[in-house]
Amino acid sequence: MTRTMHKWVVRQPGAQHLAFEEAAVPTPGANEIVVRVGAVSLNYRDLGVIAGEDGALSLPYPLTPGSDMAGVVVATGAGVSRFREGDAVIGTFWADWIDGEWPDHARVIGGALPGVLAQYVVLHQDWAVAAPRSLDAIKASTLPCAGLTAWFALAEKGAIRAGQTVVVQGTGGVALFGLQIAKAHGAEVIVTSSSSAKLERARALGATHGIDRSVQPRWEEAVRELTGGRGADHIFELAGGENLGASLRAVRQGGRISLIGVLGELSMTLPSVPSFLTRPVIQGIGVGHRRALDELVRAIDATKIEPVIDTVYPSERLPEALAHLKRGAFGKIVVDFAE
Amino acid sequence: MTRTMHKWVVRQPGAQHLAFEEAAVPTPGANEIVVRVGAVSLNYRDLGVIAGEDGALSLPYPLTPGSDMAGVVVATGAGVSRFREGDAVIGTFWADWIDGEWPDHARVIGGALPGVLAQYVVLHQDWAVAAPRSLDAIKASTLPCAGLTAWFALAEKGAIRAGQTVVVQGTGGVALFGLQIAKAHGAEVIVTSSSSAKLERARALGATHGIDRSVQPRWEEAVRELTGGRGADHIFELAGGENLGASLRAVRQGGRISLIGVLGELSMTLPSVPSFLTRPVIQGIGVGHRRALDELVRAIDATKIEPVIDTVYPSERLPEALAHLKRGAFGKIVVDFAE
Amino acid sequence: MTRTMHKWVVRQPGAQHLAFEEAAVPTPGANEIVVRVGAVSLNYRDLGVIAGEDGALSLPYPLTPGSDMAGVVVATGAGVSRFREGDAVIGTFWADWIDGEWPDHARVIGGALPGVLAQYVVLHQDWAVAAPRSLDAIKASTLPCAGLTAWFALAEKGAIRAGQTVVVQGTGGVALFGLQIAKAHGAEVIVTSSSSAKLERARALGATHGIDRSVQPRWEEAVRELTGGRGADHIFELAGGENLGASLRAVRQGGRISLIGVLGELSMTLPSVPSFLTRPVIQGIGVGHRRALDELVRAIDATKIEPVIDTVYPSERLPEALAHLKRGAFGKIVVDFAE
Amino acid sequence: MTRTMHKWVVRQPGAQHLAFEEAAVPTPGANEIVVRVGAVSLNYRDLGVIAGEDGALSLPYPLTPGSDMAGVVVATGAGVSRFREGDAVIGTFWADWIDGEWPDHARVIGGALPGVLAQYVVLHQDWAVAAPRSLDAIKASTLPCAGLTAWFALAEKGAIRAGQTVVVQGTGGVALFGLQIAKAHGAEVIVTSSSSAKLERARALGATHGIDRSVQPRWEEAVRELTGGRGADHIFELAGGENLGASLRAVRQGGRISLIGVLGELSMTLPSVPSFLTRPVIQGIGVGHRRALDELVRAIDATKIEPVIDTVYPSERLPEALAHLKRGAFGKIVVDFAE
Repeated sequence: MTRTMHKWVVRQPGAQHLAFEEAAVPTPGANEIVVRVGAVSLNYRDLGVIAGEDGALSLPYPLTPGSDMAGVVVATGAGVSRFREGDAVIGTFWADWIDGEWPDHARVIGGALPGVLAQYVVLHQDWAVAAPRSLDAIKASTLPCAGLTAWFALAEKGAIRAGQTVVVQGTGGVALFGLQIAKAHGAEVIVTSSSSAKLERARALGATHGIDRSVQPRWEEAVRELTGGRGADHIFELAGGENLGASLRAVRQGGRISLIGVLGELSMTLPSVPSFLTRPVIQGIGVGHRRALDELVRAIDATKIEPVIDTVYPSERLPEALAHLKRGAFGKIVVDFAE
Repeated sequence: MTRTMHKWVVRQPGAQHLAFEEAAVPTPGANEIVVRVGAVSLNYRDLGVIAGEDGALSLPYPLTPGSDMAGVVVATGAGVSRFREGDAVIGTFWADWIDGEWPDHARVIGGALPGVLAQYVVLHQDWAVAAPRSLDAIKASTLPCAGLTAWFALAEKGAIRAGQTVVVQGTGGVALFGLQIAKAHGAEVIVTSSSSAKLERARALGATHGIDRSVQPRWEEAVRELTGGRGADHIFELAGGENLGASLRAVRQGGRISLIGVLGELSMTLPSVPSFLTRPVIQGIGVGHRRALDELVRAIDATKIEPVIDTVYPSERLPEALAHLKRGAFGKIVVDFAE
Repeated sequence: MTRTMHKWVVRQPGAQHLAFEEAAVPTPGANEIVVRVGAVSLNYRDLGVIAGEDGALSLPYPLTPGSDMAGVVVATGAGVSRFREGDAVIGTFWADWIDGEWPDHARVIGGALPGVLAQYVVLHQDWAVAAPRSLDAIKASTLPCAGLTAWFALAEKGAIRAGQTVVVQGTGGVALFGLQIAKAHGAEVIVTSSSSAKLERARALGATHGIDRSVQPRWEEAVRELTGGRGADHIFELAGGENLGASLRAVRQGGRISLIGVLGELSMTLPSVPSFLTRPVIQGIGVGHRRALDELVRAIDATKIEPVIDTVYPSERLPEALAHLKRGAFGKIVVDFAE
Repeated sequence: MTRTMHKWVVRQPGAQHLAFEEAAVPTPGANEIVVRVGAVSLNYRDLGVIAGEDGALSLPYPLTPGSDMAGVVVATGAGVSRFREGDAVIGTFWADWIDGEWPDHARVIGGALPGVLAQYVVLHQDWAVAAPRSLDAIKASTLPCAGLTAWFALAEKGAIRAGQTVVVQGTGGVALFGLQIAKAHGAEVIVTSSSSAKLERARALGATHGIDRSVQPRWEEAVRELTGGRGADHIFELAGGENLGASLRAVRQGGRISLIGVLGELSMTLPSVPSFLTRPVIQGIGVGHRRALDELVRAIDATKIEPVIDTVYPSERLPEALAHLKRGAFGKIVVDFAE
């Protein structure tokens, strides 16, 4: 194994302070594994972490950002039973959320804990799962956050069934995973977007209908029409603000609205009377646990879902990748660490 | 059986148009029962119906208001199998919501359908259940709407368990049923109110803690303290507006907020980031189905819960009862139809 | 409309007493519809009804057998709001099980209630749903009992998800619907059978694996191997007797065994220690409710599942169809009533 | 701290080989705590472990038996964050089953892992929770296995509600916890026993009804009568063999039978037709996870449930305690380690 490597470090808040620094390749302690990183997919929250804003959390500087990684185990510490050298793995987004309810002591990799934008990372063996056999590292790296968020909303919490209708707002990473996971369960999918070109691409991925918000700003009425008045069974709320009220008008009686990483708006507004007469379940989704990630991996292998990658950047061009993410992407932006 | 009776009728919107009119005692058609009404409990929505406002529904005039009734079956039509003459019954709030999901064709008794503020009413046999053996008509009349709403939120949807903490806002009918039902399941209850006298009475009913909002307007912080930082397991959201954001800050990770008949405010506001990081379930509750009402009746008989009645008015003094309801009550206002 | 029709009648127990008798075309009473039957699919229990054995129920003679029908509404009685003349419909197996828990008063069409092996039938409007747009009457007639049983076990009760493994025993109607519904949700399916030819056909329908019980009588060990030791997520128990113990050894930790119309054996045997250490859910499935049938219809239209028909017999050749059913079929036997 | 202590050791299978040996007081490694044991409650399975039979597991000799302990933390190793010296704790039965599904690597304390019949024990910090404030060590020691088993069946999996009916078979530790937990949720409880004296004591604890099996061997018919024909909502199946068939006839439509540590019989038998027409959920319960144990502790503090102790033996008289356990007890047998 080489003795040195490069990793991205930000020593003070601000993207201008990102540096691809040389560092020693880590060695594993007890219960730890060292992973040679193959690829890291980016999430919108990485922009916040680099800028020094991660919700209410205070971040430890210097820090390495990045939460979603696929790679290969190259060393294992004492007591490691889950993996062996050579195993292809993906990391978890939350360290120590294994199953059931989110525990207080769970922390984010690439937040309170060191991130994965590095050639080698060291992780507790509990913070990784076997990668899907059907995906390469570029594609597998998209599962821990965006993939799992969509899976958790639809399959773990949502009991998605064939014949239901799912609405996803926009064409970002979570939205397109929502589309693909819903389709894999036999559901119909309505995508909303302000770009007819993106809607065309969403249809090519299997979307049943697209609603062009630049033409039809009251998208909720279009959803009602497309479902014969019934409303959608599941809605991914990704916009916030007044849009939540529209989601409520678009959801069916007793349907489900998943609140997912709403970053564009500081608050959301719900009209009162429809809130109880529609009897919806409105549920916050904050990624998910490791048991569900294992199940997503099995589902990926069984259904041959191919995560949608907008662009792959080589590892040394992270700043360009982040700039692209900020502009908006169709699916995921991935940073390639393969040598 | 007498041939004529009195019932309350409003021939045009407005409480000033209420009249206690003479009418023929109804006779039952096929599958119908006639009930001699013992008591009717009032709900805040009755004020809206009398004023001509029932959400989005258009109301048929002249109409008899009132949704919640207890009485005795005095006649049965052909095909009636659920009841016999002499059976003590309570009505359902929703006609034709028997079990499972709310069906489109369900209608409100005392809304789209004729109400129960009358000495005799005729009902489809499916719109009533056996009254609890442990309550008289005055108390039993409070179950169909207020009682069932609290039961549906906690027991049918909420899986309330011993040792959990429930927050109820205020001391109206639903709030006090929430208190009593939670206590009957071994849970602890925090009541919020702006009246220290009402908090005292709530404690006498079994509330574990009271938060006086006139002293502690940031009640959510008090809830955090009282639960050792953990937050409440269930919250009845009864105020709306900005209060929903406070409920979100008061609820535990993965906890449940029930949206119940929020009448004071037209909309509700949620802060974005806590909405997904707290992972709450926020669920609209619109009363409940008949199967759950049957189960509530069994629970009442098993636990000897006594519904909290603020004041009983004789049937001819309905306007005074409505005025009292409007001022606010501690528990329920009931109209007595016993002769 | 023609005034007379033919229907199958059995005037005393025994298949030898079946007669295709002339009768008046029924007229609809209040809330009733008359359906011109297009096709009736047969179920194993029809043999029992004709022989005079329907579990603990006493059957009313003379009776018309048959539970599963697809047809077209040709007349509607007063008060019918769910259908119009010309609507394609399928019947429900259970009369009056609409949603939620099975109610005591629900009865079987083709059991306690008159059956559908007739050119015209009269039904309460609540005992039918809109037929799927994507199926003809022959195929649609298979949904009310066999299709719904499989759907109820997997989708309504089982929360089937992509990537899971489902085991179905044999290649009868319920088993093949289980295969198709599981596949439509992205699951993998293992079929067990004693016929390699039938396993070949099951693979052509999408089965991931087949286990030939004539070669591998300990099929549960093969399931363990095929799932990497994990066990199956869902098992359809269709054989009974000692086989339930094998299902328990084949199911994963916390997995689900659906007990479905086990007719071959009078009792089933479970080993004690694995019963609690495997923590399975073992659940009886007795067809399902109308709300789920509506959802199955939507799923059929969305996924284009084509029910598997073994053989179609013209209506006057019912006895041959029943004999075929008794011998065993690959999928469903259907009786065609189209003129 | 003293340097030596005593602990019970069995160096080869058989109760005659139990010895109360001197040993060094353990010191905590990283993430470990040392607990001064206050009390250990016995479970029927301890007899099997001492005899060398623990289901399919091979046991490591010499071993210290005992799974259920309450005590006080007297030392903490590096990295311990969950506890401090002086904290009153109870152990978990399963090491490393924290929440959600039972994981393969979970092991039993007092089975594959060293047990707790010792004056001091060392545990990973994850294998203990805070003891209830309302119980002393004698009573608290009964929660990890018997208490949690009953809680898991009724509250975690069973959604027990006020007004339901629970049947518990016998008056052992799990049965009496079932009685108390059901009562604390407002449910009614029927106890079956062959001893009228024990039924009398069960009634004194709050049982609504007792069925004396020596008088009424067909106890299931008595349950039907006592529930007005409806059947019980929850049944604890603790006997096995043919009794499971009786439980099936006693449970209500769609009700729940929990299979719990059935030790008396190697197998259980179910009649086929009622198995699907009653639509029960039959679920294996193998104790439960740590998150549920935390919730049980909160419930104990909130409801003031006092676990039922038959007899307390001083630590050096373990063999007598085991003999008592074997004869049968009313509630729990506890071994007192307080000095």
